[in-house]
Amino acid sequence: MEYIDEITSLKNQVSFRGTLEVPEGIENVVIAGMGGSGIAGKIFQELYTKKPVSLVTSYDIPEFIGQKTLFVAISYSGNTEETIQAVNKAKKRGAQIRAISSGGKLAELVENTVIVPKGFQPRSAVGYLSVPLLRGFGLLDDKDVELTKNLLSDLDTHQTRFEEFGNDIFQNKSIPVIFGTPGLNAIAYRWKTQFNENAKVLAYSTSFPELNHNDTMALENTYRKDEFYFFVLTSRTPEKEISNRIRITSELCNIEMHKVEGEGNTVFANTFTLIHKGDYISYFLAKKRGVDPRDVAIIENLKRELAVS
Amino acid sequence: MEYIDEITSLKNQVSFRGTLEVPEGIENVVIAGMGGSGIAGKIFQELYTKKPVSLVTSYDIPEFIGQKTLFVAISYSGNTEETIQAVNKAKKRGAQIRAISSGGKLAELVENTVIVPKGFQPRSAVGYLSVPLLRGFGLLDDKDVELTKNLLSDLDTHQTRFEEFGNDIFQNKSIPVIFGTPGLNAIAYRWKTQFNENAKVLAYSTSFPELNHNDTMALENTYRKDEFYFFVLTSRTPEKEISNRIRITSELCNIEMHKVEGEGNTVFANTFTLIHKGDYISYFLAKKRGVDPRDVAIIENLKRELAVS
Repeated sequence: MEYIDEITSLKNQVSFRGTLEVPEGIENVVIAGMGGSGIAGKIFQELYTKKPVSLVTSYDIPEFIGQKTLFVAISYSGNTEETIQAVNKAKKRGAQIRAISSGGKLAELVENTVIVPKGFQPRSAVGYLSVPLLRGFGLLDDKDVELTKNLLSDLDTHQTRFEEFGNDIFQNKSIPVIFGTPGLNAIAYRWKTQFNENAKVLAYSTSFPELNHNDTMALENTYRKDEFYFFVLTSRTPEKEISNRIRITSELCNIEMHKVEGEGNTVFANTFTLIHKGDYISYFLAKKRGVDPRDVAIIENLKRELAVS
Repeated sequence: MEYIDEITSLKNQVSFRGTLEVPEGIENVVIAGMGGSGIAGKIFQELYTKKPVSLVTSYDIPEFIGQKTLFVAISYSGNTEETIQAVNKAKKRGAQIRAISSGGKLAELVENTVIVPKGFQPRSAVGYLSVPLLRGFGLLDDKDVELTKNLLSDLDTHQTRFEEFGNDIFQNKSIPVIFGTPGLNAIAYRWKTQFNENAKVLAYSTSFPELNHNDTMALENTYRKDEFYFFVLTSRTPEKEISNRIRITSELCNIEMHKVEGEGNTVFANTFTLIHKGDYISYFLAKKRGVDPRDVAIIENLKRELAVS
């Protein structure tokens, strides 16, 4: 599959019917996942606030995990070393375990696994990996899906402005920095990782209002300021407090912030249209750089070397 | 007080006797705090894993907060807008509320406030703001304090190597990027914020092993690679899996990683000696740049403009 086909498949992924089965009586949720698979947990953590949600992004699990914990392991390949180790530890604690995966060891290890379609890069399967979680917790309905599908289709037919962003970043060989806003910090991080993996450029993300307590001091006065390219991600109707912060920060620090808004008036539509925009921009930057957005050879080499060391 | 005196006061701060009173029967912990005050919550979240710990770094609080929640508000000034709003919301939910502050509105609002000494920059009061939390949850004993105090004193008398790091970063006008490792991600973030506020340079932090799933692709192939200065923070005895990742990433991506280790054989000593090293390096970078490490005028201006908008 061409990488562009993986990107445009997002509109189909959002209507995936897989649903995580959520047991009664749980007190907290823990989601284990790394990189392109881990992003689903980060999105969920920001959107679901009815119970404490903790993320595991390494080999170890927190002590509180027990029978009242719903432990969800997400690994597209099903073979992510850190996630497999974490599942084995959570099993010993008697946690209620679920998984989302295209197969691999994880699907063998966890009876209750939502199986998603094979053949994608993990990061391109973000819809397949997120939807079962959002659906399981009732954060998604059919109207949402229909709206989002239409908005994503529409973005697919208007790619030029994303290409312009890619060209603009390339022109000055800029380092993208993405500012999240409340509810969209996971998406800012998603953009960062897509710039890393697709375009093979360093990129970073930070968040409003937290960045006003530290980054702001640097944004005014740092060396190399012109070498960064600042994005800020918002919904179409951000909170007034946040809009004010964006405007004032931009003025006081004298920086250009490229504002990118989500589409639609639901959280789901907003989230997935913003994901899609970042996917496109990083893809076009890759093309402009002449690098293959699919290529993740170094990550594969690293896994191989780790396995024998 | 000179800024260097604030830095060297850390050895006294670790023996602060203030202790957060932790009620019986709580199911989860939520810590609200921004910037230099928020770092205490981040440190705690990484070290305490017996109950779910969630962080609030904006105006809103998660839905699950209720009577079984211990809600801890940390604001050095006691007047942080986001934190005050969050406390008011948590009160309405009947959460058990505690605070750590030098005074301000917060100390009036929360009966059960641990009062810390006045006269510091919030970020320089990291010991005062963290210790009551660690003490309250039994993560700290007198032996720990004694050991850490001695190690910090020792660092104060061997500042030259930190000055060398500062000079080295300045020489090429580098952007510091700090790689955390499990248990030290809050500290990597602390270093980032100290570079921002003290030296007024952009800086970023990411974490092993997560960075091996995304940043790695950029580290090999990005433009502007030579303009970044990479640190990795570890204890003196990191897990073998993490040591391997550091070594292999450095080799495969052909980057120099400046390894900085914590001192001592306890988590507390390791954490606070690493904080101290980052404080010094960012301080010396500020001096080399000719900027005042104390100055946070832009943050103050921003708060003023926000208040009237």
